[in-house]
Amino acid sequence: MTFATRSNSTTFNGFEPTPESIPPPYNELRLKLPSNLPVNYHPLNPLEFLLRAALIYPNKLAVVHPDVKTPAFYSYSVWAQRVQNLGYALVKAGLKPGDRIAVIAPNVPMMADALQGALAARVVLTAINTRLTPQEVAYILEHSGSKLVLIDSEYLHLIEGTRIPFVVSNDTGNNGDPYERFLSEGRQFSGEKGWSGLEMEADENAPAMLCYTSGTTGRPKGVLTTLRGTYLAALANAFEGQMNANSTYLWILPMFHAAGWTFPWANTFAFTTQITMRSVDYPLIWKHFLHSRVTHYCGAPTVQIGIVNDPAAKHPPQQIRAYIAGAAPTAHLIGSLEKIGIEPIHVYGLTETYGPFTRNYPQESWSSLSLEERSKLMARQGHPFVTAGGMRVVYRAEESPDPNGELVDVPKDGKTMGEIVTRGNIVMKEYFNDIEATNKAFRGGYFGSGDLAVMNPDGSASILDRSKDIIISGGENASSLAIEQELASHPHILEVSVVAREHKKWGERPMAFVILHPQHASKWKGRHGDFARDLKAHAKRRLPGFACPEWVEIVPELPKTSTGKILKAQLRKVVAKL
Amino acid sequence: MTFATRSNSTTFNGFEPTPESIPPPYNELRLKLPSNLPVNYHPLNPLEFLLRAALIYPNKLAVVHPDVKTPAFYSYSVWAQRVQNLGYALVKAGLKPGDRIAVIAPNVPMMADALQGALAARVVLTAINTRLTPQEVAYILEHSGSKLVLIDSEYLHLIEGTRIPFVVSNDTGNNGDPYERFLSEGRQFSGEKGWSGLEMEADENAPAMLCYTSGTTGRPKGVLTTLRGTYLAALANAFEGQMNANSTYLWILPMFHAAGWTFPWANTFAFTTQITMRSVDYPLIWKHFLHSRVTHYCGAPTVQIGIVNDPAAKHPPQQIRAYIAGAAPTAHLIGSLEKIGIEPIHVYGLTETYGPFTRNYPQESWSSLSLEERSKLMARQGHPFVTAGGMRVVYRAEESPDPNGELVDVPKDGKTMGEIVTRGNIVMKEYFNDIEATNKAFRGGYFGSGDLAVMNPDGSASILDRSKDIIISGGENASSLAIEQELASHPHILEVSVVAREHKKWGERPMAFVILHPQHASKWKGRHGDFARDLKAHAKRRLPGFACPEWVEIVPELPKTSTGKILKAQLRKVVAKL
Repeated sequence: MTFATRSNSTTFNGFEPTPESIPPPYNELRLKLPSNLPVNYHPLNPLEFLLRAALIYPNKLAVVHPDVKTPAFYSYSVWAQRVQNLGYALVKAGLKPGDRIAVIAPNVPMMADALQGALAARVVLTAINTRLTPQEVAYILEHSGSKLVLIDSEYLHLIEGTRIPFVVSNDTGNNGDPYERFLSEGRQFSGEKGWSGLEMEADENAPAMLCYTSGTTGRPKGVLTTLRGTYLAALANAFEGQMNANSTYLWILPMFHAAGWTFPWANTFAFTTQITMRSVDYPLIWKHFLHSRVTHYCGAPTVQIGIVNDPAAKHPPQQIRAYIAGAAPTAHLIGSLEKIGIEPIHVYGLTETYGPFTRNYPQESWSSLSLEERSKLMARQGHPFVTAGGMRVVYRAEESPDPNGELVDVPKDGKTMGEIVTRGNIVMKEYFNDIEATNKAFRGGYFGSGDLAVMNPDGSASILDRSKDIIISGGENASSLAIEQELASHPHILEVSVVAREHKKWGERPMAFVILHPQHASKWKGRHGDFARDLKAHAKRRLPGFACPEWVEIVPELPKTSTGKILKAQLRKVVAKL
Repeated sequence: MTFATRSNSTTFNGFEPTPESIPPPYNELRLKLPSNLPVNYHPLNPLEFLLRAALIYPNKLAVVHPDVKTPAFYSYSVWAQRVQNLGYALVKAGLKPGDRIAVIAPNVPMMADALQGALAARVVLTAINTRLTPQEVAYILEHSGSKLVLIDSEYLHLIEGTRIPFVVSNDTGNNGDPYERFLSEGRQFSGEKGWSGLEMEADENAPAMLCYTSGTTGRPKGVLTTLRGTYLAALANAFEGQMNANSTYLWILPMFHAAGWTFPWANTFAFTTQITMRSVDYPLIWKHFLHSRVTHYCGAPTVQIGIVNDPAAKHPPQQIRAYIAGAAPTAHLIGSLEKIGIEPIHVYGLTETYGPFTRNYPQESWSSLSLEERSKLMARQGHPFVTAGGMRVVYRAEESPDPNGELVDVPKDGKTMGEIVTRGNIVMKEYFNDIEATNKAFRGGYFGSGDLAVMNPDGSASILDRSKDIIISGGENASSLAIEQELASHPHILEVSVVAREHKKWGERPMAFVILHPQHASKWKGRHGDFARDLKAHAKRRLPGFACPEWVEIVPELPKTSTGKILKAQLRKVVAKL
């Protein structure tokens, strides 16, 4: 017998939601139906997961924000009311269906509200990366045409001087908080019409979120998603991790990154409890792993490395599943996670695919393999999710008379390199206001990921590299990822990144930037040259000559995006000056 | 780490699939894409679950048919090829998209093939109940306009003299079997074009299955379902039981009943192993529970009663989840199932809703209740599935100027009776070739179930009765189901059914038909009058006077449909003659 439980040991600490957050008795948890829908058609809408959770498990903890001065604890019933209030507040602010708004905040309740509440008002939400510069933020606000900004007070400097109206949250959940007043006004404006005063979007292909890519080259592009896509991606994410009403999800991945890979809705779909944290704080993560019954979280490998190497790391009492994306996990990382009872779920995707759209599906036959052999198989990006439309690895016959360029599948030999392309329900609608970029991305009827990969005989894909990260060494294509995978097996390495560096004879040669493992760093102190020799010897046993690093540099840290992806563009800038 | 396993201990017994069932190496497991699909749109199609399973877990056992003279064991790879062969064979037979075909068979591999293969050829499948008379079968074949019949040799008498072409299966899986020859011809006809020679249906709202209702009154009606509805219903069924690649599903429910409640696709979605049996045989069921690692099955309460009362019943080594639908499980049944480690999942639906569309969602607060109190809550039909569009309990303001009759929600008081209505993705497309019946069923923009229910304060529905089963006793509405629930708590009763019987003074009064529990039957031998008095006294302590049975009859068995539903219409005929 499974029960929905409160799922964590965090206590309420005397927290009381504002009076306007309390729903009326006999609350109707359904949106106003658009007229003329066929009896057998209901538009897919991820907002309805929340309404359903509030109907079935009203008293279950939905959003918990415990690690701040005034912790907040929202049940599904209360949270749904707050989202409704936000929906009405947006309508009151004059926003019309299809209008854009922005939110700038870390993982806090306002952010969780915004991702749902925008759908309630049928406005399109842009969640902006908090690590951007004011200039970058200004560009996104302008490009998106945002008419309102919800902003956490810590990030007010990012919109200094803006003429766009904004609402500040002090992240208190208290009556005095401007954000709370905004919600209260929404409730008052509703006239207690409740959910039935907000009309359901009749078109499931209507826009949902506007997610700007980090834009390592050029201006960021606005990825426009749909209700249907979000619904189907969220559902697949929940299913792949077997999330259910007994699950507790810890928000380590920023919700502003590709709308949290649709996990805001995967969680409401599965009736989980979500715990939010303002920052990626490893001791705090371990506090929750060990004491809050966390069962699921998402993170890039670099975040996972931080987690397993934290001094507090030990086997938690419950099973934890970790979704890993952004890069393939190394054998060392997989081994470290499994040793403390964390099951890695390797998924792959891009902002344009709502976050993950493929998974590495473990096979029974792998259980007899060594960790190293098994890890190589687990590093494959795998097969598409059930709700995705399919994936191919192709080269483009650019010379074809078809102006789109015909797509030709590479052979399933695990060797021939091509580009990963996909189509279907987990592909964005378009780049917002950028027909040219959209058409380019959709050439040949598929979305081109820009990731270079091979197709394995089992129909799974393995990424070799981003097209721009490939190293052309002596005329050979060397995958920086493959080199990193092999170098990471050196026992003294914590993290490594490899980029191309100009070479007189070979054109390009790999250069490795290495962070040593804290336990072994002292051994090589003052002997960086010795370490470089040691690592090169290690590489020679595992890689063809053209793929061996010509240069090795030990560094204290690597440049990363807010989501933990290593910024190779910055490393290349360093290299260019050498 | 979870792995897909072979999931059962049944051995291959040297079984070899026919050569034409073996897919070619480097088999492309994708259908031909229709032209002009948007890049971000993929039509939902439940057939693709099978293709995906064959891609990701080709060697996993998909369909196992062990309890016949020549047992069959199909891996996902082989099964998908057989389904492809069937698709081509149907095309070769001249069938065009939208044409209808029929299948008449128990739960055998041909039946499993047909439910998938019809979708491959884009024809609409009518799976006909094997318990019908030849006249009824003839009516369905004619009404559906079936152009081909796939038939198990045991049921040939049902189509004697038909002019429709048919293909016989001897359920052997061997080369000599006519059905196998049919598949082989399909493979030859394909010219090895594989899946890419079969075009995907571009319209997800295209028809999928044609399921005839048992038709207790009048002619059976043909419930036409869609690809989208089947996809979304199957997905919800798999999710509610937490089915996954480690699951083994035992086919107890006939696949011809409402297309097996969409479990043919719930299983392929979740990568399970399915075990098929030609009949509902309790010792065989227990053999599989105890030795084949069965984790899931579906059945009406009467089948569940047979299962828990079988002499072989004992706690299986693995967790089993039982989907129960057709009627609410009694406290006694819930207790009996839980005692042997079977978790009941109470779901509710009709053929018109693809089988289940609601579930009773257990609440944490129930764990402290007694079995009897908890069972009352577990008997509620609950809340709609996530992919359903919603459910209401309404009365119809027939006098309203709106010709459809306005729908007015009953208060959420757990007392006021109304009709369960629903709409959305898990509602049929229409009654085939019966606009009048369709319009009547869809009055007011919702599908009217004909089930009378109350809405509880928590938004869950509890069925009181089918509208035609209600007993009007002294002007009061007595629910035959509620009476049965209370009578079933008598410890000597195995099964009970209650219908109205004419009464001079009160108009109608309840009459109970009782099967005694085998352990207690001897006690009442020759003392039926004493038992009737005992049961009436039991009833008086639990029910209002008008709901107490006026008559009690001990019977050796109750008339049932093939799916285990008690045929109250037949009991009423018996009563009419008294």
